[in-house]
Amino acid sequence: MGFYDFAGSTLVHSVGGWAALVGAIMLGARKGKYVNGKIKPIPGHSMPLATIGVFLLWLGWFGFNGGSVLSADPALVSLTLVTTCIAAAAGIVGAMLTTWTISKKPDLSMVLNGCLAGLVGITAGADQMGLGSSFWIGLIAGGLVVISVMAIDRMRVDDPVGAVSVHLVCGIWGTLAVGIFGAMAGLKQFGIQLLGVGAYGAAAAIASVVIFSLVKVTMGLRVSEEEEVEGLDLGEHGLEAYPDLALQPGAKNSAL
Amino acid sequence: MGFYDFAGSTLVHSVGGWAALVGAIMLGARKGKYVNGKIKPIPGHSMPLATIGVFLLWLGWFGFNGGSVLSADPALVSLTLVTTCIAAAAGIVGAMLTTWTISKKPDLSMVLNGCLAGLVGITAGADQMGLGSSFWIGLIAGGLVVISVMAIDRMRVDDPVGAVSVHLVCGIWGTLAVGIFGAMAGLKQFGIQLLGVGAYGAAAAIASVVIFSLVKVTMGLRVSEEEEVEGLDLGEHGLEAYPDLALQPGAKNSAL
Amino acid sequence: MGFYDFAGSTLVHSVGGWAALVGAIMLGARKGKYVNGKIKPIPGHSMPLATIGVFLLWLGWFGFNGGSVLSADPALVSLTLVTTCIAAAAGIVGAMLTTWTISKKPDLSMVLNGCLAGLVGITAGADQMGLGSSFWIGLIAGGLVVISVMAIDRMRVDDPVGAVSVHLVCGIWGTLAVGIFGAMAGLKQFGIQLLGVGAYGAAAAIASVVIFSLVKVTMGLRVSEEEEVEGLDLGEHGLEAYPDLALQPGAKNSAL
Repeated sequence: MGFYDFAGSTLVHSVGGWAALVGAIMLGARKGKYVNGKIKPIPGHSMPLATIGVFLLWLGWFGFNGGSVLSADPALVSLTLVTTCIAAAAGIVGAMLTTWTISKKPDLSMVLNGCLAGLVGITAGADQMGLGSSFWIGLIAGGLVVISVMAIDRMRVDDPVGAVSVHLVCGIWGTLAVGIFGAMAGLKQFGIQLLGVGAYGAAAAIASVVIFSLVKVTMGLRVSEEEEVEGLDLGEHGLEAYPDLALQPGAKNSAL
Repeated sequence: MGFYDFAGSTLVHSVGGWAALVGAIMLGARKGKYVNGKIKPIPGHSMPLATIGVFLLWLGWFGFNGGSVLSADPALVSLTLVTTCIAAAAGIVGAMLTTWTISKKPDLSMVLNGCLAGLVGITAGADQMGLGSSFWIGLIAGGLVVISVMAIDRMRVDDPVGAVSVHLVCGIWGTLAVGIFGAMAGLKQFGIQLLGVGAYGAAAAIASVVIFSLVKVTMGLRVSEEEEVEGLDLGEHGLEAYPDLALQPGAKNSAL
Repeated sequence: MGFYDFAGSTLVHSVGGWAALVGAIMLGARKGKYVNGKIKPIPGHSMPLATIGVFLLWLGWFGFNGGSVLSADPALVSLTLVTTCIAAAAGIVGAMLTTWTISKKPDLSMVLNGCLAGLVGITAGADQMGLGSSFWIGLIAGGLVVISVMAIDRMRVDDPVGAVSVHLVCGIWGTLAVGIFGAMAGLKQFGIQLLGVGAYGAAAAIASVVIFSLVKVTMGLRVSEEEEVEGLDLGEHGLEAYPDLALQPGAKNSAL
């Protein structure tokens, strides 16, 4: 029907995002996340490492979107790299402005999610967007991810890294954006993109429910409470992440 | 007039370096940096992270210099990548030998600055240098950055990461090097390069004084003393960098 | 004679691996590694940093193997990048399955070595392997590295990062694999590859013994016992890796 999804805002990201959403609901929240009706933040253990991780993803995205051109066409690969980079940068700006407005401080963890949001958003149309469209797609994705993270937390779905907001919400946004800014933009194309989003979504959500249910009744979905408190590094891998560094009291589980 | 600055030793790096110098002077030193006439080192909190950061910059520089060829010309892009890499490696050697000679130990933080110094130095002529010239440009940049960091510290200008030494001093060196080693090398070209360095420098320094003065009288340039002691991660972003790790006594501000 | 070693499983990796083996034997084990006939693990200080390091090597390997094509030939460079990536991923799977079978838990440090093992293994034939062959070469390399690390430890040769297992054992494997899976595969080619491995090995091992002996009688090979306990960061470089972070008791040397 002409559904367009260049390097996979829908095929890769929203499919993964549906699985993340179903998984987060079926697994339930981490111990200590929602206590007496209150939302307690459980911050990641290292902001510099989170930042480097996002940089590595950003760099890898050049290979992912650029490689999806599937030929060594200098002009088309260059355009794809440029739209990818602009959307990532605009996602950072969008998330920074949104958190600055809402919580009066630019929040680094949201800025990092904003970068990924912009990258996910541009992925459906990275080979056919103009530079201005890339900017707007990224900027809006950066704003969307912040609002989505807050909304999902308020619904008491515990998504520790904002995966649903980054991959599902911005994957849908990027796919629809092809109907707004793309080469075939128009109401008809927008309708086709929407239909594609819905079809993939139904398939992915149903498959996720089936798979997670099978895991639950066979191996089980959740570790024991002792293992959760002790930390999964030890329970699953028999290793500590930082064998030589001292931790703050209660660091292994901020609920304690 | 024929001023040559391929990917921006002057346009990018020395312009930024002038702004850094003006900013460092107008902002003043960190609390506890210069006490009773003595220079106190305030080391970065993680040498491994600093090292990874330099590797990411080195990798990014291939995109920056290589992309500045502005065409998918395999021979010219290849040459640019090779001269960039040789200068970075030679900068490491130059800084290592210099610190080893001066302080009897190879200093990792200076070796990292030496890598960046070599990269900044080659940027003005990365598309026209031979392999030998690239080596010498990088080696000299690596030595220059070490001597410059020490000299700027002795002038009681507090530049926490050596930005002025890396970007201003080595940006000027790289631009002049085009007049020494470049395709049009000679006294005339050297004079043109020197004139360009001076013209950009005057414009950048004056603009920086104006902009920092405007910031000072409107929003203010410096955080409060309490915020400086508490750490800007908390004051500006409301986040700790390492929420789970215990710090050494007095780590947040080594002056205390 | 037709010995084939595309980007250096032998020339780069097994040569380095022989030097590492000779060095590890001549230097002797770290204090506290083998105590009263028991092998004591001395874990690296940060698993996240080790992981990022492996990602940077993986990314760099694309430049190394891809660049060894020595021309901007899109088809051959693309094939080389794909075989390189598949072998790395298969090495991860091979090492994970092997440690999971042997020690009941997937060991991250071995998974990281498995990635490097796959990369070393494919390097001799990255420009002529099919996708299936690349998978098997990587998978076997990932299994080999785990078994080799254990065997070398049992022989009381202290190789802190598994360099001999990654570079020597998997370098030999990758070189022989060209005689099994390569374009000229067959008993004759296998014999030539074996001869090449032996010739390089003899030369590298003898040269390493000579060089390490010269270092031993002139500058000395090993630091003093006090410097080993205090840590070589301080002794050799005058710097701490983490100036602001508190360490666990006895962290600087787990023997204490």
